[in-house]
Amino acid sequence: MLIDVKTPPQKNLSPLEVLSNDLSKDMACVNREILTRMTSDVPLINKIARHLIQAGGKRLRPLLTLSISNALGGNMSRAHGLAATVEFIHTATLLHDDVVDESHERRGKAAANDVYGNQASVLVGDFLFSRSFQLMVADGSLETLKILSDASAIIAEGEVMQLQMQRNLETGWDDYIQMIGAKTAALFAAACEVGAVVSQGESEIQNAARDFGYYLGLAFQIADDVLDYSAEQGQLGKAIGDDFREGKISAPVLLAYVASSDDEKDFWVRTITDGQQSETDFATAQNILKTYHISEQGLDMARTYADKALAALDTLPDSRTKHTLAQICEYVVTRNF
Amino acid sequence: MLIDVKTPPQKNLSPLEVLSNDLSKDMACVNREILTRMTSDVPLINKIARHLIQAGGKRLRPLLTLSISNALGGNMSRAHGLAATVEFIHTATLLHDDVVDESHERRGKAAANDVYGNQASVLVGDFLFSRSFQLMVADGSLETLKILSDASAIIAEGEVMQLQMQRNLETGWDDYIQMIGAKTAALFAAACEVGAVVSQGESEIQNAARDFGYYLGLAFQIADDVLDYSAEQGQLGKAIGDDFREGKISAPVLLAYVASSDDEKDFWVRTITDGQQSETDFATAQNILKTYHISEQGLDMARTYADKALAALDTLPDSRTKHTLAQICEYVVTRNF
Repeated sequence: MLIDVKTPPQKNLSPLEVLSNDLSKDMACVNREILTRMTSDVPLINKIARHLIQAGGKRLRPLLTLSISNALGGNMSRAHGLAATVEFIHTATLLHDDVVDESHERRGKAAANDVYGNQASVLVGDFLFSRSFQLMVADGSLETLKILSDASAIIAEGEVMQLQMQRNLETGWDDYIQMIGAKTAALFAAACEVGAVVSQGESEIQNAARDFGYYLGLAFQIADDVLDYSAEQGQLGKAIGDDFREGKISAPVLLAYVASSDDEKDFWVRTITDGQQSETDFATAQNILKTYHISEQGLDMARTYADKALAALDTLPDSRTKHTLAQICEYVVTRNF
Repeated sequence: MLIDVKTPPQKNLSPLEVLSNDLSKDMACVNREILTRMTSDVPLINKIARHLIQAGGKRLRPLLTLSISNALGGNMSRAHGLAATVEFIHTATLLHDDVVDESHERRGKAAANDVYGNQASVLVGDFLFSRSFQLMVADGSLETLKILSDASAIIAEGEVMQLQMQRNLETGWDDYIQMIGAKTAALFAAACEVGAVVSQGESEIQNAARDFGYYLGLAFQIADDVLDYSAEQGQLGKAIGDDFREGKISAPVLLAYVASSDDEKDFWVRTITDGQQSETDFATAQNILKTYHISEQGLDMARTYADKALAALDTLPDSRTKHTLAQICEYVVTRNF
């Protein structure tokens, strides 16, 4: 493939869409792999898996594996399997998250736990999780197995950390970053690192790919947390205000609480710590955020991590894909997706 | 170690206790491995993991890995790690089971979901599951990874099958056997097979070890299902009657339903299919079981599988451990543990 670093992405397309277009053949292979491997002899598993997979989602994590592998001239056939693995881990996590959070919407569709019950969601999550390990074994490399099994354990730790800091407005910013680092950024990092492993790059390149993923993951999650307070309903493909209603500790709440007046602090204690909410409270929360420009402040924090991701990317050789990945660093902190 | 095939086990000790005594040094290594590997930087994970691990349980599955490895002169150091892996998978499954079943007691202690909430149980289960894979990776063999990751996926399928046949009195016996084969026997089989893998036995021996575990698992689960209707409360280290209350389809219900009169069939439909139960219904169920000698019939079914396990064991070379394993085939179908 001829690579022209200077080719600008087509107008009107987001860098994520450019990446998806450029790697559409590879993504098609990943989707085929996902569909093939999620099938089971147990009908209910197929039904729930299909419910989730058809809802689609951004496929951001597998796209990262493909991008890094592509940018480094890696073995794309291995990248397809590993990208599918990454998506399976992510989907299993989503299923269990929705049970834990009692969510009602996911990827713009009714959440699986609402349709099929918590029991099925827990068990099908376990199945997809096991399948992800079978896919890793099929890749046949202990190195990728280590990276992805480590990431899985860290994700679970991050989820438990999140549960532990729920409703605690005194949570420190560093603890929040550590939590989203585990819950979200670890899989972004692993997705990128395995993309480098199948390219047999030097350890410097591999580390850079992992760092890129990690910092991009932090930026992505902070922006995601901001959007849960500021996006228009329907824009995200999931309900907004969920974090508020669940008393989740996220960037906008932590930043707003610190900035708030005494009266406003009382509001946060009542709604978040005590979980006493009325129907108009989310609008009040949004207004407090507007008063103190919390969204902007949050996205600024996200940008500091996006900049670190960009810096890590420097180590990779130039390519059109690298160019688009660089644009994605900016995109995740301005996105409305 | 000198092996005397003819040494009879000490009197008053069950074969399981003999096995535990003979392999007590190895079990101590496994327990150390479990304690070391279950620790996390996240306090709540340690608390829940300790709650479960300290409750103990029979450690039957890791003991099988150790026994097979010992009987075949295997690498016991690898067996320790793999035995711990097997126990981690089992413990993760228990945590998720208790959420799915809404159980209140486990291993004679309050179930983790009752103490720490369903959310924590789901997430800590995920953590232990991930840890099991990290332990497999540490073993460094793609062969054991394949065996155990395949088993994990099959277990999840079995759990979903169980959920799907809940309350369905028309469930066929073969479907029930397929379900417990996946839910229970697959891990017994894998535990034994990896014990053979670290002994680098011929494939014939490895297959025999797997078959032994599989049939023993079937016998064990049928007996377990029978005990849930017939044991004295407190004897099992868990509440009895849970299967009845949850409308679970198990050997005694299926056998009793077929044997029942029309009036009794109506009773089963009301209590199991419709889930309409009063406080005296479990006693009525137990009485119907007594009328038709269902426990004996169930244990006879279990014995046919225990016999198959015994036959598979024939392929292994003679040893004291093999001798005790043979006694365990009988023990699981007469046990009160």
